[in-house]
Amino acid sequence: MPGDEYPRPLVTVDVVIFTLHEEALQVLLVRRKNPPYAGMWAIPGGFIEIDEPLETTALRELEEETGVCDVHLEQLYTFGDPGRDRRGRVITVAYLALLPADRAAIRPGDDAAEARWWPMNALPPLAFDHDRILACARERLRSKLEYPATLAALLPEPFTLNQLRATYETILGEKLERIRFRRLMIAARVLREVGIEHRTVRGRPAKLYRFREDAEAKARRILL
Amino acid sequence: MPGDEYPRPLVTVDVVIFTLHEEALQVLLVRRKNPPYAGMWAIPGGFIEIDEPLETTALRELEEETGVCDVHLEQLYTFGDPGRDRRGRVITVAYLALLPADRAAIRPGDDAAEARWWPMNALPPLAFDHDRILACARERLRSKLEYPATLAALLPEPFTLNQLRATYETILGEKLERIRFRRLMIAARVLREVGIEHRTVRGRPAKLYRFREDAEAKARRILL
Repeated sequence: MPGDEYPRPLVTVDVVIFTLHEEALQVLLVRRKNPPYAGMWAIPGGFIEIDEPLETTALRELEEETGVCDVHLEQLYTFGDPGRDRRGRVITVAYLALLPADRAAIRPGDDAAEARWWPMNALPPLAFDHDRILACARERLRSKLEYPATLAALLPEPFTLNQLRATYETILGEKLERIRFRRLMIAARVLREVGIEHRTVRGRPAKLYRFREDAEAKARRILL
Repeated sequence: MPGDEYPRPLVTVDVVIFTLHEEALQVLLVRRKNPPYAGMWAIPGGFIEIDEPLETTALRELEEETGVCDVHLEQLYTFGDPGRDRRGRVITVAYLALLPADRAAIRPGDDAAEARWWPMNALPPLAFDHDRILACARERLRSKLEYPATLAALLPEPFTLNQLRATYETILGEKLERIRFRRLMIAARVLREVGIEHRTVRGRPAKLYRFREDAEAKARRILL
């Protein structure tokens, strides 16, 4: 064993989890119970167990701290600068997950004092370098807008084109031209029609769509 | 310090470095001097120092083991499955670098018995899970073909369109139609003409190009 020759850092896993709620992009944060940064808000996460795959740690910590489970994770980036944690060298492997609003119910666990969704445009001060991790996650989410079908995890299905456009506008933080957006989405062939909206008010009912689930649809890019 | 409460894994950094040489995609490997896997080939890399940023470790290990320095690294992926290293829990942060062939001279260091470039289509058996790391790196490299200007690090400049197409063909492992490739590249507006090829033989001299260096050019995508 090389354990005596080589330094052993601490390793954590953090999970940035986004949802769309009330026309805002929201991120799930937990209030820290213990030092350092006790009382401050942070991305859910924690130290690895020695025999646990990284993704298992991520899912376990997420559920322990927030009650959220059964999400699809993708690895985001590993942050390892010395000095990012005052307790010593702590390297964190950050993951990203997207959750539709109808599954965003939370139940804080023992390890965190409190858990709640925060709008990305009104965040509290964050512990550690978590503002940097969030910025990285937001960048990754924006890059997903170019591949519409990768947003399936964020949207309740079925949806209308107007709802899909609203999703884009929320993530981008800007308005998109309605006709052009519709044309791009139809041309990309990533959607399939699944019916017609029920309307209790007057007006032409809108078509309802789901994302096509095949790999080809996931690989189709639109240029906004 | 939480050092007694939480497990401390070992952390390494590995560097996948590609070049194009003799019409083949090649990867820089080192022969391991010490157990485990002594005598086998592996991606250059090593254990972190406690006060060293991850990228600094990557550059240091690369230079110590191969003599290669001054490369641009991007983080690839973090591999952390328990059991990927028989010495215990070893998490590795993998980086990717591209090197033009004219800078691919190597000089093995003390930490490795030998270093050399291997063609990706004729690799030796690899230590640890390094075949998996290489597969991930190759996938990332292929995705770069869609954004031509990100290949600048792999090509000696200036180059002709035929040379650029040969680069694409080598990475893809398939032939591309000459006229269509030219049209795509010109339409993408990622190249700038910098002159005309010197010819010692007959024939119309080809135009020479460099990649445009602005961010806009880097973001332009072609669909092969």
